Amino acid sequence: MKDYQFTIEMETRDYECDLQGVINNANYQHYLEYTRHKWLQSKGQSFQQWHNQGIDAMVAEINMKYKTPLHGQEEFLSCLNLRREGARFIFEQDLYRKSDLKLCLQATVHIISVVNGRLSKGDELAQLIDIE
Amino acid sequence: MKDYQFTIEMETRDYECDLQGVINNANYQHYLEYTRHKWLQSKGQSFQQWHNQGIDAMVAEINMKYKTPLHGQEEFLSCLNLRREGARFIFEQDLYRKSDLKLCLQATVHIISVVNGRLSKGDELAQLIDIE
Amino acid sequence: MKDYQFTIEMETRDYECDLQGVINNANYQHYLEYTRHKWLQSKGQSFQQWHNQGIDAMVAEINMKYKTPLHGQEEFLSCLNLRREGARFIFEQDLYRKSDLKLCLQATVHIISVVNGRLSKGDELAQLIDIE
Amino acid sequence: MKDYQFTIEMETRDYECDLQGVINNANYQHYLEYTRHKWLQSKGQSFQQWHNQGIDAMVAEINMKYKTPLHGQEEFLSCLNLRREGARFIFEQDLYRKSDLKLCLQATVHIISVVNGRLSKGDELAQLIDIE
Repeated sequence: MKDYQFTIEMETRDYECDLQGVINNANYQHYLEYTRHKWLQSKGQSFQQWHNQGIDAMVAEINMKYKTPLHGQEEFLSCLNLRREGARFIFEQDLYRKSDLKLCLQATVHIISVVNGRLSKGDELAQLIDIE
Repeated sequence: MKDYQFTIEMETRDYECDLQGVINNANYQHYLEYTRHKWLQSKGQSFQQWHNQGIDAMVAEINMKYKTPLHGQEEFLSCLNLRREGARFIFEQDLYRKSDLKLCLQATVHIISVVNGRLSKGDELAQLIDIE
Repeated sequence: MKDYQFTIEMETRDYECDLQGVINNANYQHYLEYTRHKWLQSKGQSFQQWHNQGIDAMVAEINMKYKTPLHGQEEFLSCLNLRREGARFIFEQDLYRKSDLKLCLQATVHIISVVNGRLSKGDELAQLIDIE
Repeated sequence: MKDYQFTIEMETRDYECDLQGVINNANYQHYLEYTRHKWLQSKGQSFQQWHNQGIDAMVAEINMKYKTPLHGQEEFLSCLNLRREGARFIFEQDLYRKSDLKLCLQATVHIISVVNGRLSKGDELAQLIDIE
């Protein structure tokens, strides 16, 4: 495992499995979103609070490489790095099976921000999350 | 099949199946909600529109009897009857497998209404959906 | 709060909310299922393992009373009592908001068991979970 | 709109919306999967049937660009093109809002196949879906 700015422990739930007995692909997006929200919470911020201030963060693009499937009731680590590229906030998010640290998912999520209904250059968001 | 006030045809989706290869129990609630919304739409109404007028309809109670499991990519009929009991709007909602009309789910859903933040006796909703 | 045989702490996730900003009704069923699986896990059992032994536990009936809505990122207690009534295993499952112990959901879930493809009188399951 | 090998009409459902009143990001993956399964069905094939023959198709990589958000009860077109690149089957999948054909989602999905538990070069799958 490389270094990450933020890591949480999670566990899959049986109802997230599909016919093949592995976690349905779409649920990984839930895990990624949940991790970003937890990271925000750790900074005393929330999407809800931003929304009330007229700032909306939205996923513009997401790339996911499925490496090893997770199964039901399996623990994993959800790790996150963030950098800014102009108007885009790029989250590198990786999931590792906890038992052997095998890489399960490698994702890149591009977030953009809309302030008072207009696409922003990202400065408001950068200030809120204290990133250059 | 008995008589119903409203019926739509639906089809299960593979991603709604769980480990056992049948539709996950919680998804039936989605089917029921979707059917009520379609029924409303057929009357030119919508929950969104009500919400904007300060009227919120909410599920107070739901009873579901699981009779026969639905599988992936299976067609079914979703049927609805409605009666009012004071402040409560009682939806009788049954799902039938389309191929042989076998009863799959038998549900009763109690809806209450909140108008401008206060629990209502139901008269506003009754008027909107034209029920005595 | 009354006494329960099993209690876990859970937290809602933002993606479980709907248009009205509260947890979508169907997700409560996920919480209930998750709690039953955790309870089983605490007894060294699992549905997956039973399935492999030819024993399938299935929801026959579920009744839910929605008392107070949960919101995103909200902690709650998920509590469970179990009794057997012949072939049926009756789970009383209640959810309480953690901050003030307000009752959010009151549910009764009837589980039946199928052994080698035939509806069982429940003795196999009763033995596995050590209930009279 | 460009040309596509396969197109279906779909409609969003209210329960797929999130807090912001738009379809939650993860649900788009469900739409894409559903469309692939419908495409397969139009060819007389199914993942379930393949699974029983020892052939499993799996998502290896997915890239999604979110262009315009879909709202509840909104109709859209789900379009699909497929090409093979060695062991990978590349689905180009685009979603358009039906009312004005505005592009909502642009996705690329890489599918690989596992035959009898071993990663395949793709020839079995190519034969089943009649692609060079």
